[in-house]
Amino acid sequence: MISLDKAIRIVEQSVTALNSEERVSLSESLNRVLRHDVVSDINMPPFRKTAVDGYACRAADLDNPLTVIEVIAAGTTPQKTIAQGTCSKIMTGAPIPNGADCVIPVEDTELLSDGTIRFKGSKPKSNICELGEDIKIGESPLSKGTLIKPQHIAIMAALGCHSPIVSVRPRVSILPTGDELVEPTEIPQGSKIRNSNGHQLIAQVISAGAIPMYHGIVGDTEEVTEKAIARALAESDVVVLTGGVSMGDFDYVPRIMERLGVKILFDSIAVQPGKPTTFGVAGNKLIFGLPGNPVSSFVQFELLVKPALLMMMQCNEPYARTYKLPLAIDYSRKRAERLGLFPVIVNDKGEVEPLEFHGSAHIFSLAKATGIAAIPLGVKELKKGELLDVRPI
Amino acid sequence: MISLDKAIRIVEQSVTALNSEERVSLSESLNRVLRHDVVSDINMPPFRKTAVDGYACRAADLDNPLTVIEVIAAGTTPQKTIAQGTCSKIMTGAPIPNGADCVIPVEDTELLSDGTIRFKGSKPKSNICELGEDIKIGESPLSKGTLIKPQHIAIMAALGCHSPIVSVRPRVSILPTGDELVEPTEIPQGSKIRNSNGHQLIAQVISAGAIPMYHGIVGDTEEVTEKAIARALAESDVVVLTGGVSMGDFDYVPRIMERLGVKILFDSIAVQPGKPTTFGVAGNKLIFGLPGNPVSSFVQFELLVKPALLMMMQCNEPYARTYKLPLAIDYSRKRAERLGLFPVIVNDKGEVEPLEFHGSAHIFSLAKATGIAAIPLGVKELKKGELLDVRPI
Repeated sequence: MISLDKAIRIVEQSVTALNSEERVSLSESLNRVLRHDVVSDINMPPFRKTAVDGYACRAADLDNPLTVIEVIAAGTTPQKTIAQGTCSKIMTGAPIPNGADCVIPVEDTELLSDGTIRFKGSKPKSNICELGEDIKIGESPLSKGTLIKPQHIAIMAALGCHSPIVSVRPRVSILPTGDELVEPTEIPQGSKIRNSNGHQLIAQVISAGAIPMYHGIVGDTEEVTEKAIARALAESDVVVLTGGVSMGDFDYVPRIMERLGVKILFDSIAVQPGKPTTFGVAGNKLIFGLPGNPVSSFVQFELLVKPALLMMMQCNEPYARTYKLPLAIDYSRKRAERLGLFPVIVNDKGEVEPLEFHGSAHIFSLAKATGIAAIPLGVKELKKGELLDVRPI
Repeated sequence: MISLDKAIRIVEQSVTALNSEERVSLSESLNRVLRHDVVSDINMPPFRKTAVDGYACRAADLDNPLTVIEVIAAGTTPQKTIAQGTCSKIMTGAPIPNGADCVIPVEDTELLSDGTIRFKGSKPKSNICELGEDIKIGESPLSKGTLIKPQHIAIMAALGCHSPIVSVRPRVSILPTGDELVEPTEIPQGSKIRNSNGHQLIAQVISAGAIPMYHGIVGDTEEVTEKAIARALAESDVVVLTGGVSMGDFDYVPRIMERLGVKILFDSIAVQPGKPTTFGVAGNKLIFGLPGNPVSSFVQFELLVKPALLMMMQCNEPYARTYKLPLAIDYSRKRAERLGLFPVIVNDKGEVEPLEFHGSAHIFSLAKATGIAAIPLGVKELKKGELLDVRPI
């Protein structure tokens, strides 16, 4: 049994980045990993421009009425120079005319009966955006490895990066194992249960930006299992098994993995839920054996598999964000030899409220959970107000 | 100018939920809004089962060696009853045999030379999951209105909800306006700039689970603009314009909206960035006029448009989660007549670090931001350690 930190480091060291990349459109690039720095081909703003609708003029003239000599729309070029006692009406985003050193907002002005305008505000700001104040030609505001979100698409669009190059998505084989499983379309009889892990994993793989390859339920014979894993290793970059990975008699998966040339790097983690988690490598392929219980499978995917997928895509932030938030109540547990992870809600006051949790088979505990909180190895009791690491889910 | 809270309430009261729904597969249901309560057709666990690999026996017998009388795999039915001095080897998830009241984990046992096994642990737990302890027939762990995430898919799969009914996705027309705009494929000349808002909005609409309908750049003439808005209103559920919504001479959009039967409900919000934000309704269609600056457009979409889209889909949590996190440094601003929103990074200590921010045109400030923090209306200064509301982005 190794610590979660150790397990995470082992997975990290085992990842081989995928070399392939592809060119996509801006909207297709959403949630993909950028493969090159985005370099600006322009200054932004590309010219001195006004930040407000108003009148471009000289700050020294503000005590006197001003004669409007031109109207400057966004997208046009000013024709006239501002001299003493004059101004140009100007729209947000339009270039500043020569001679002007400030723009007074339209709401701080009044139109006098002779057609001149007068400043009625106080302490004017310049309201001018200087050329290149946000970015200069050749600068790179967006780095290789960025997981692309809508705000990054705005940056790419602004800088002319209209068909970005992104990493290909890893293919992930999903193999739920166990004779006790039936698919959700069936009503489980006798000692059967429905396969929930397989479908949860498909969704987790999609959410991680990778491509799920669902192999269906793999029955509990050594031959069937070996064949399924061999095929999965041949067809995909990552293989995820659930069930069949702990110490029971029928849990021959570790044995098969060794026969298939899979080097097992760990088979148990000091974390609850999720202790019987197996990890191995076969060449540059990764293989995860996740526990059969759906909460364990969910949590271990988030902790280990998702970061591995993001690293294969060369993402520079492969680990999920966590927040340090205060407990709403005292919290205790009976045993402390593993890192504990449990479902919580963050309430309106920003405090962490533990949810009812029967253990790793209790998937309903995740129905309303907004986060998974961690109680460190060795810690049995926490008082109200103490800070916990919370991972939003 | 109204407060952001008031603006949010007005949008909320203007939303008409979309009636249409559709049946999808489990994996297609990811990020969609569930339209019905999911009711359990089974007890879970559906039988008394073991939580661990080990030996099912009587707690009273643990001081003595136990004779193994059967091996019970997951998915099979026990044939024998546990009597004094006997046990059955049992795999995780398998049914508990009659007569047993606990399962001792395999790692807490040793095999003696005569083939019996001996408990070598201390203080045994039962390790039995009772029938229906997680959920009972007819209970509903997952409510109508849930935004479906991977963990919810596990619940649906477990309960046999294999083709859930979800809300249809709203169609959102996107109309960037302004003669100064060119598309990202062009190099902007003179006083032109590239259209970044339009592409950012497409990605935001996709991220909100709705369908973007991109209309291209709308030029600055009243006729062209009116035609484009009329078409957008006819074809979609929500219309989002950017640019052309403030007080300049060429900003005739509010006038057109009125002509098209759009009732304007507000045209300015006490928030920075994003003050010149317009909102109106035409029948059950919503129309948003967002500011032309990309940071304002981004923020106002997240604050107003995204919740509206989620409410149209009858999502029961339409508002983004925020966290109350401490400031890493003292923070101040010059004016406090608007709610201030600014890009931040949450550092490793869980503290909020403001990023360089030149204002609403400064999209590069969002490149590395992990959140948007709020400084309340009327507040100019905050000290290190004071809690801020932070919205992850």
